[in-house]
Amino acid sequence: MRELHFITSNSGKYAEVSSILSSKGIPMVQRDIGCPEIQADTLEEVVTFCLDWLGSKEGAYLIDDSGLFIDALGGFPGVYSAYVFKTLGLSGILRLMEGVPDDERTAYFETVFGIGLGAEKLVFRGKCEGRISHEVRGEEGFGYDPIFIPDAGDGRTFGEMSMAEKNAISHRGKAIKNMMENANRIIEMLNQS
Amino acid sequence: MRELHFITSNSGKYAEVSSILSSKGIPMVQRDIGCPEIQADTLEEVVTFCLDWLGSKEGAYLIDDSGLFIDALGGFPGVYSAYVFKTLGLSGILRLMEGVPDDERTAYFETVFGIGLGAEKLVFRGKCEGRISHEVRGEEGFGYDPIFIPDAGDGRTFGEMSMAEKNAISHRGKAIKNMMENANRIIEMLNQS
Repeated sequence: MRELHFITSNSGKYAEVSSILSSKGIPMVQRDIGCPEIQADTLEEVVTFCLDWLGSKEGAYLIDDSGLFIDALGGFPGVYSAYVFKTLGLSGILRLMEGVPDDERTAYFETVFGIGLGAEKLVFRGKCEGRISHEVRGEEGFGYDPIFIPDAGDGRTFGEMSMAEKNAISHRGKAIKNMMENANRIIEMLNQS
Repeated sequence: MRELHFITSNSGKYAEVSSILSSKGIPMVQRDIGCPEIQADTLEEVVTFCLDWLGSKEGAYLIDDSGLFIDALGGFPGVYSAYVFKTLGLSGILRLMEGVPDDERTAYFETVFGIGLGAEKLVFRGKCEGRISHEVRGEEGFGYDPIFIPDAGDGRTFGEMSMAEKNAISHRGKAIKNMMENANRIIEMLNQS
């Protein structure tokens, strides 16, 4: 069987995902190589472009991308979440949301995992609906966690939850679960001649 | 001599640039084909990636990209200017700049033109320094013009200037001038065997 090359520079992320997929019999290896991220409207376009770009090379690749999509801001920051976090930060987002009433503060987090072998692809999604808080709350997690209140929770932000609590309802947790439930399709891809 | 394929869906932009380059003896043709735009820190990276991506095909290509870089926002919206204009708009930028004093409202517009033939590239830049206004002013131009006050002007925003006034000092005007002054290098590239 081919190995599945998980493209990430984040060893913690690699350890988490590879332990889950390995338990399903999928041989994993970490690859810290760059992949161009395009400007696009959806995470799936970003992930698919990367897989196509890598497709010319030998091997099966796994990549993921995540983003926060805020309805009142036309989906901003979306696929640019990392860049916007770095430049505007949480305070910038809260400033843009000033005066927006509670029922219009809806947003969702999304994670997309993509696996590619040549031109063939598998895509697994996870989505978490919620709303943007009025202030920064909590110090757990990372990125936009302290301003995102998941609908499936009890009113706390992701920043106020333990990692286990968050993983049980998060976009990322759901995407990983989705991938696990389809491990047989991944193994089929890795085994094909 | 090869033709220079200007990749743009904007016929007005094509007409402007092709009339100038044609007058220097450069044969031009408009190509309305897509080119992936990557997420990057600089316009040059965006333009260069597109040329590399096209490089596998036959022909010499011309593309351009522009952006507004605001110092107080860590360079935001930068290479994402079009997306941010579409989602947050001028009001979003002004909101992010609320309370920022005049001497910290510095920003610049930049345009980069790139020409590629196989692995070879020519890059021409134009930059226009200025600052962000406190309110939307004027209805000329497009994009961020009504909130950008160029240093080389008289205090009006680009949105309050005629196109001729703006072109004389703009990032785009400078980049085109830079390209015209190097027309011989472009012709050399188009003539090479």
